[in-house]
Amino acid sequence: MAPGMDRNSVIAAAERLGTSVRRTPTLRCEALEPRAGVELWLKAESLQHIGAFKARGALHAVGRLSEDERRRGIITYSSGNHAQAVALAARAYGVSADIAMPVDAPRIKVEAVRALGARIVFAGTTSPERHQAALAIQEHTGGVIIEPFDHPDIIAGQGTATLELLEDVARAGASLDALLVPVGGGGLIAGACLACAGTGTRVYSVEPVGCDAMAQSLARGERVSVTPGPTIADGLKPNMIGALNFAIARAHVAGSFTVDDEQIGRAVVALAMRAKLVVEPSGAAALAAVLAGNLPGKPRRVGVLLSGGNVAPERLAELLVRHGADEVSGA
Amino acid sequence: MAPGMDRNSVIAAAERLGTSVRRTPTLRCEALEPRAGVELWLKAESLQHIGAFKARGALHAVGRLSEDERRRGIITYSSGNHAQAVALAARAYGVSADIAMPVDAPRIKVEAVRALGARIVFAGTTSPERHQAALAIQEHTGGVIIEPFDHPDIIAGQGTATLELLEDVARAGASLDALLVPVGGGGLIAGACLACAGTGTRVYSVEPVGCDAMAQSLARGERVSVTPGPTIADGLKPNMIGALNFAIARAHVAGSFTVDDEQIGRAVVALAMRAKLVVEPSGAAALAAVLAGNLPGKPRRVGVLLSGGNVAPERLAELLVRHGADEVSGA
Repeated sequence: MAPGMDRNSVIAAAERLGTSVRRTPTLRCEALEPRAGVELWLKAESLQHIGAFKARGALHAVGRLSEDERRRGIITYSSGNHAQAVALAARAYGVSADIAMPVDAPRIKVEAVRALGARIVFAGTTSPERHQAALAIQEHTGGVIIEPFDHPDIIAGQGTATLELLEDVARAGASLDALLVPVGGGGLIAGACLACAGTGTRVYSVEPVGCDAMAQSLARGERVSVTPGPTIADGLKPNMIGALNFAIARAHVAGSFTVDDEQIGRAVVALAMRAKLVVEPSGAAALAAVLAGNLPGKPRRVGVLLSGGNVAPERLAELLVRHGADEVSGA
Repeated sequence: MAPGMDRNSVIAAAERLGTSVRRTPTLRCEALEPRAGVELWLKAESLQHIGAFKARGALHAVGRLSEDERRRGIITYSSGNHAQAVALAARAYGVSADIAMPVDAPRIKVEAVRALGARIVFAGTTSPERHQAALAIQEHTGGVIIEPFDHPDIIAGQGTATLELLEDVARAGASLDALLVPVGGGGLIAGACLACAGTGTRVYSVEPVGCDAMAQSLARGERVSVTPGPTIADGLKPNMIGALNFAIARAHVAGSFTVDDEQIGRAVVALAMRAKLVVEPSGAAALAAVLAGNLPGKPRRVGVLLSGGNVAPERLAELLVRHGADEVSGA
């Protein structure tokens, strides 16, 4: 376990966050259980503020800043849900925010960040270009950069989603044998590892085929840089797992899975038709791994983190057309 | 108010139902509030067992039967969610169920009823044909017909959805000024009226244009028979409001709205993209009325019953394609 971080870090984060994050519902999904062969406990972070778990880490991290730091404003770089999360946190704390986004960011994401009152700086199309832009702003304003995943406050904040899930399952008189978590930079799974420490719940990572930085790093015993291949799971395309995230995951993750776009697309449609939830491809990846079967250790009760619901309407429509008939007929 | 039915009927139903129904989440939808001009409190009955509030009434009604009645089995007639609800209740109580469905029932609904273990009798395409088939089965088996809406136990059961919504809003330190409810036969709204009695929350009915049996009946002061016009809200096409349902509604409903298919379709897409919920057209009708504006009495906090989520994938895809771009651009 990383120095200074443990289950209590997540419990403390939950206390600090209080009602600023939504306690999203934990939903048993009986309709998919015959197919999954296990009890399915879904944590619907798609219903979190800004439609993704990222609100937890950002609100926690910004809440931990000093008055002096807040006065200088906050900065981040993101093509996705973290941008909205930081904009939300800035608004919540009355702090100014500058966010570096790619020039080809989808209009829906740009509008959402703007609607929350953050300033946007457009910078190239790659993550390094956005990072450079953030550093340039920092040089000018002296503001604090809110990292997307590689930071103790972000990790502890994301861990609160798993803490709630475990609490809800315990309240129903049960406990999870396994928890499957989609992995981008590793913020959600590092938090999940901390939350599950000592509980007996095994944590598994799920990544798209060709984007398996965590699986490769775990196999190698050190962080591996990957060039992410194409996938519809646009939130799960890191070049590298965060350093702190990997240190925590290495000590705790029980195994890793990869899923392809076909499996992810089918999981999106299964969630829409059976669980009645709109979940983005990145958010459905962990369910895709469960539905593929072959979970080790014959778990009876399985938790699944549905990490977000921000999918473009045309993408959701396309997947419904492609997989809807099979889903309905049970093929 | 109808003789013998009041708020306590709903409270008693909630106690009897206990955990056999799911306490569905109440979700504030900040993302749609600027457009709605009010605080929006969504009750997501789309996340109820079988994907609709109908599970409440059916489980309550079957739970109230005597041992002798249960031994003879139960019967119902439905083209929609009530069929699944009765099949679920029959399984829960270990009772046999015969369900008359139309010969042109969608395959997904037929499979869902069958998967729950009920027997299906196909009977014509109209409601009177299905009702006749149910009566014929009853003559043979002596079983009890579980009415779809016009029965005290069904109404009290459906009312528990509103009771939970009011409790959740109160727990957040607030109270609803208005509640909008989609109306088919009137089970959900009659239960809502009972649950809201004496609370100060005004109840409004919402129906598709051309299917406004409630609005016409309220205007006339007596039940009016309508020939429902075409609408994508296939659960809101009654010929006539139930007698008990109308007696309760007449004493309590503060006003009525109609919405067209364009408005309903936009509401389905708004819910998918902003609230991340899959809601069927019938279930989105009440939100459509809120988004149309013009709610009387300048309510500040408005509750919306999202009655169900059972939509065919091709219908949802079609609506996303038609209205998705406008939803994303805010047009």
